[in-house]
Amino acid sequence: MNPTPPEYLPWTASDFDFLAPHLPPPPPLSPSTTPTKPHLTLTYATSLDSMLAARPGVRTTLSGPATKTMTHYLRSKHSAILIGAGTALADDPGLNCRLAGAADGDDPLRWQPRPVILDPRGRWDVEGSKVLQLAQEGRARAPWVVTDLAFVDDAKAEALEAVGGAVIALATEEEGGEGGGLRFGWGDLLGVLASRGVGSVMVEGGAGVINGLLEERGEGWVDAVVVTVAPRWLGKGGVAVAPVKDGGEGAAAELRGAKWVQMGEDVVVCGTLA
Amino acid sequence: MNPTPPEYLPWTASDFDFLAPHLPPPPPLSPSTTPTKPHLTLTYATSLDSMLAARPGVRTTLSGPATKTMTHYLRSKHSAILIGAGTALADDPGLNCRLAGAADGDDPLRWQPRPVILDPRGRWDVEGSKVLQLAQEGRARAPWVVTDLAFVDDAKAEALEAVGGAVIALATEEEGGEGGGLRFGWGDLLGVLASRGVGSVMVEGGAGVINGLLEERGEGWVDAVVVTVAPRWLGKGGVAVAPVKDGGEGAAAELRGAKWVQMGEDVVVCGTLA
Repeated sequence: MNPTPPEYLPWTASDFDFLAPHLPPPPPLSPSTTPTKPHLTLTYATSLDSMLAARPGVRTTLSGPATKTMTHYLRSKHSAILIGAGTALADDPGLNCRLAGAADGDDPLRWQPRPVILDPRGRWDVEGSKVLQLAQEGRARAPWVVTDLAFVDDAKAEALEAVGGAVIALATEEEGGEGGGLRFGWGDLLGVLASRGVGSVMVEGGAGVINGLLEERGEGWVDAVVVTVAPRWLGKGGVAVAPVKDGGEGAAAELRGAKWVQMGEDVVVCGTLA
Repeated sequence: MNPTPPEYLPWTASDFDFLAPHLPPPPPLSPSTTPTKPHLTLTYATSLDSMLAARPGVRTTLSGPATKTMTHYLRSKHSAILIGAGTALADDPGLNCRLAGAADGDDPLRWQPRPVILDPRGRWDVEGSKVLQLAQEGRARAPWVVTDLAFVDDAKAEALEAVGGAVIALATEEEGGEGGGLRFGWGDLLGVLASRGVGSVMVEGGAGVINGLLEERGEGWVDAVVVTVAPRWLGKGGVAVAPVKDGGEGAAAELRGAKWVQMGEDVVVCGTLA
């Protein structure tokens, strides 16, 4: 048995009982049909003023110890974890599960989700990233990087394949919004993940990815929402979660069955998208 | 005894026990000195994306029944309730306490806070407002309207004085920010309220007033913060609470001793400004 590395987080399963109604179902023992999309959990942490970060391109720690541990618990319950390239560039996140016990046992990857990075233009440099390093050390699954057909880089694909990862080439849609950038259609993307055996995916950010899912709330991509709110205001100029609404004076999106639980100084709300 | 009007809200005092540490202290029996400022409670309701309203100038109902009742409980515990003229214009709020029991007894105003409207340019039309009507019906205290010396209107002052209200003339500071408008200094304003015997004031909005108080967190104006968050996203283009920060990558403002309590579908967080 491997010793638990010191940075791994102590935890108590019962702390997360309130999440049970929203966790992905266990994989079927004998799947009769391939699902067309994974169970999708939308999860992120913001300030009271709905900011993910104090400024674009910087990492801002919002979650306290209790909600950070919850995030790692959620990671242990999903087959994949998905972020946009902007977040990968700004935060260089590990994207693995660092709950105490995760490194123990015969299969140190059994609690580890597959990192999926949406990188339509191939901006993110795999070499030197924390995610690649953790995969090389056997403490995370190797990442899949989803890139537009036109931006696939062979050297990057080889570096990923060497540790068991992959570049997934996928056609993008032209984005109509202010960014004017490329984006993948959620239907295409979730279809590719499902076809590769991903039963559940946790979407962690950043703002473009989160807002995009909230804006397409009518499509049924999102099965569960888990949001952490930290008791501070990051202020104007931060990176905001605020979806574009389709007109009218009503809400852009709404949670059904909201359950709020204080963890440390933060609150966690979970529910489903109405 | 007057019958309780049907729109008055049933309530249970113990629902609000969690607010006790943040309520204004009772007025001293024999005040030895006049305080220089009232106890100030900053309170507002937003969406998950920190919007007070879906668009500028429109009223958006965010609080559910339980947190709406809490707001009226807070109103009963403060001597004054303060809003900006933009909110008065957009919402035409009653600004009275409509808890069941508020209209009973010998003094139907005993639970009623004094409405204070910050209207530097005299934009808000008192005539026809709900606040004036309620004062005329004896269901609210008559409002005080704080206006820059240059914009005091005699007819408006007379209409207010006829029901026991007042126009308070106060010098403004030129605002440096994007609005470029006039604003009062909080020290001046709170000094005037204290000199008129206001022991506690609840600040309900709008965004300019709230952001201004958060931006001056170092001045000690705010004694307690009570924020309601409703489980929905109002989306881009709404009226946002997000203070301007004074540089750096840290938080613009922070709550100390945050306590989160679910009420209905909403959550309420209370604490003090760090």
